Amino acid sequence: MVWEDVQKIRAQAPLVLNITNYVVMNTTANALLAIGASPVMAHALDEAEDMARIAQALVINIGTLSTHWVESMFKAGRVARDRGIGIVLDPVGCGATAYRTETAQRLVREVRPAVIRGNASEIRALLHSGGNTKGVDSQDAPDDVAADAGELARSAGCVVSVSGPVDLITDGTRVARVANGHALMPRVTGMGCTASAITGALLAVNPDRFAAATHAMGVMGVTGEIAGAGAAGPGSFQTGFLDALYRLDQAQLSARLKLG
Amino acid sequence: MVWEDVQKIRAQAPLVLNITNYVVMNTTANALLAIGASPVMAHALDEAEDMARIAQALVINIGTLSTHWVESMFKAGRVARDRGIGIVLDPVGCGATAYRTETAQRLVREVRPAVIRGNASEIRALLHSGGNTKGVDSQDAPDDVAADAGELARSAGCVVSVSGPVDLITDGTRVARVANGHALMPRVTGMGCTASAITGALLAVNPDRFAAATHAMGVMGVTGEIAGAGAAGPGSFQTGFLDALYRLDQAQLSARLKLG
Amino acid sequence: MVWEDVQKIRAQAPLVLNITNYVVMNTTANALLAIGASPVMAHALDEAEDMARIAQALVINIGTLSTHWVESMFKAGRVARDRGIGIVLDPVGCGATAYRTETAQRLVREVRPAVIRGNASEIRALLHSGGNTKGVDSQDAPDDVAADAGELARSAGCVVSVSGPVDLITDGTRVARVANGHALMPRVTGMGCTASAITGALLAVNPDRFAAATHAMGVMGVTGEIAGAGAAGPGSFQTGFLDALYRLDQAQLSARLKLG
Repeated sequence: MVWEDVQKIRAQAPLVLNITNYVVMNTTANALLAIGASPVMAHALDEAEDMARIAQALVINIGTLSTHWVESMFKAGRVARDRGIGIVLDPVGCGATAYRTETAQRLVREVRPAVIRGNASEIRALLHSGGNTKGVDSQDAPDDVAADAGELARSAGCVVSVSGPVDLITDGTRVARVANGHALMPRVTGMGCTASAITGALLAVNPDRFAAATHAMGVMGVTGEIAGAGAAGPGSFQTGFLDALYRLDQAQLSARLKLG
Repeated sequence: MVWEDVQKIRAQAPLVLNITNYVVMNTTANALLAIGASPVMAHALDEAEDMARIAQALVINIGTLSTHWVESMFKAGRVARDRGIGIVLDPVGCGATAYRTETAQRLVREVRPAVIRGNASEIRALLHSGGNTKGVDSQDAPDDVAADAGELARSAGCVVSVSGPVDLITDGTRVARVANGHALMPRVTGMGCTASAITGALLAVNPDRFAAATHAMGVMGVTGEIAGAGAAGPGSFQTGFLDALYRLDQAQLSARLKLG
Repeated sequence: MVWEDVQKIRAQAPLVLNITNYVVMNTTANALLAIGASPVMAHALDEAEDMARIAQALVINIGTLSTHWVESMFKAGRVARDRGIGIVLDPVGCGATAYRTETAQRLVREVRPAVIRGNASEIRALLHSGGNTKGVDSQDAPDDVAADAGELARSAGCVVSVSGPVDLITDGTRVARVANGHALMPRVTGMGCTASAITGALLAVNPDRFAAATHAMGVMGVTGEIAGAGAAGPGSFQTGFLDALYRLDQAQLSARLKLG
C-alpha cells in the first residue's frame, strides 16, 4: 500500500544518492526532504563510489550530461548494482541527441536499473535508438508507447514507468496505471525528475520494485492534485507541492488515488 | 504588439536552448515554461551542436563560466548563427574579470547575437574592455550608457537591451524605453537572466529583433509589477512572478505597459 | 549587536563571493540579496583570484566537489587570506567520503578560514579525520561536540559555528549558544549553506569574527522562527524565509533572540 511506504520513508529516512542535473537538484532534494527521505547530491569521480556504498537507493538522471558526470554515473551505478540497492534511471531528453541516447542505453546495460522512469518519447527513443524527442517534453501519451515500455522492461529486466496524464508502469508482464496529477505539472521544470527521485525513496523501503514504482507515481499524482487545487499558477504550485508532500496523509491518499 | 507575441509563444511553444549559469537554470527554465515556451538547458560539448540544430532560439549566459562551457557556447553559437535562429547573449559580470570580458567580446564577434541583454555596467565593459563592474550588479542606470549601447549595437550589428529602473533598447538607430518593473526585482537573483531567456522566447516568434527585445522587457516589467503588488518580500515575489507570467493577459498589458 | 550588523549589511551591500555547491547556489544567492548583501557565485579557475580581489568576504562550501572546483577554492582562498577578508568554510558532508574530509582539512590549513560552520557530524569528522556522517545530515546535537568544536577552533585558529536545535559558536575560549530556529529548517535543503553565506555577510561588516558568527546564527534562527510560524510546510517556509529576512527588524530581533 502507498500509505505504508510513505510511513516507512518518514520513519527510516533512507539515504537516496542522486547524480542528477543542475536544473532540478534543488527541487528534487527538497522533494526528498519533504517526503521524509535523506537526499545526497554528489557527482565527483573521487567520491561517487564512496557515496554509493552508504546509500539505500541511487537515482541517475542524465538531464545535464558531461564526460566526468557520465563516468561518475557508471562508477556509482556499478557499486549500487553490486550492493543490490534500487537504482532509478531517468533518461532525460533521450532521443534529442545521440550522446543522450547512447549514454542512457549503456547505463541500462551496465548498471541494470530497477526502474527506468521517463516520458513516452524518452522511453521510445531508449528502445529504438532514435525518435523525435523535442527537447525534454513528450509529444506522446504513456499508452501510446505501452508496447515499447513492455518490450523495454523485458529486455532490460526492469520496471518501466512512463509519466503523462495517465502514468503507465510495467514490468513487462503486469501493467498499472495512475490517473492522478494536475495540468500545472508540465508547466513546472523538474516534475519528472522529482518523480524519479521519489521513485528512489520508494525503492529504498519497498523491495517489490513494481509496487514501489507504482506507489511513487501515486504519491506524485495525488500530491500534484492537492497542490494544483490551491495554486494560482506554476509558482504557487511549486510551493504547494512541497507543503502537500510534507503533509500527505492516509485520508488524502484513500480519497484521491486512482490506481488501476 | 506584445500581446500577439505572447499568444504566439503560448501557441507554438518554441524550443529555447539555454547555455546558462548554474544559479539561475531552474529559475529561467520555469520562467520559459510559465510564458509557454519549451526550455532546454544543456551545456555538454558532445551535444551542444545537436541541441542547437533543433532549437528555435539560443540564449548564452556567461554567469558561471568555465573552459568546457565556453567551448559549448561557441559550438552551439556557430550552429545557431548559421541556421539563422535568434541568439541572445547575456554578458553577466562582464567587466568584473578579464576572463568574462574577453569571453563575452569573442562571443559577440564570432557568434553574432541578435540581442545583447545586460545591465549598464556590463554593456559599458563589453564596449570598453574594462570598467568597474561590482560583481553582477550595476552602479549605473541604462540611460547613463545610452551612447555606449548605441555604439555597441552598431559595431556588433545587433540590438542592445539594457535593463534597469527604465530599460533601454536600441539597434543603434532606434531607441525604445520600458518604464515598468518593481523595486523587488533586483532583490531576487536571476531576474536579469530571466529577461534574457524571455528575450529568447520572443525572438523565436518575432523576426523583428528590435521589437522582440523591447516586447521581452515589457513582459518582464509588467509581470514584475503584478508580482510586486502582491508580494511581502523577495520570496513571495518569485512565486508571484511565475504565477503572473503564466496568467498574463491582454488587459494587464494594455493597462500597465509604459513603452516609449 | 545583531541589529547594528544587519543595518550595516543593508547600507554597505558587501560583495560576498561564494564558491558553493550547485544544489543551493540559487538559495544562498537569494538569502544574501534578501539580507541586503551583494552575492557573486563563481568557480572558474580563470577568474577565482580576480573575484577574490574585489570581494569583502569569501564563502567556501564543499557540497558538490570536483577537481577544478577544489583548485578554484584554494586559488580564491589564498587571495582572500592574503587580503585579510573574512573566509567562511562550510565542510558539507565532511566524514561521508575521504575526499571531502581531506579537502576540508587542507582548506583549513592553507586558507585559514575565520569561521568554520557545519553540523555536529561534520565538525567531529573535520577534527578526527573520520566519523560516521550519514550524507549531509547530522545525528548529533552541537553540544555533543562542544569539546571537539573548542579543540578545532584552537588548533585552526578560528571560530567554529555548529548548527543544530541550539547552535554553538566558539573561538576555543568563549562559547555562545543561539536557541532560535524552527523544526521545518532541516526539512529544507540548503539552510545550513544559507547560514554559512549569511555568516560571510556578517564577517564583511563586523571585524569581530566571534560576534559575526554568533550574530549570523541569531539572524538565521529568528528568521526561521518567523517563517515557520507562517508556514504550512517546507515550500511556504522557503518563501516566508526570504520574505522575513528581507523584512527583519529590530523589534523582531529584540523580542525573539535567545542568545546565551
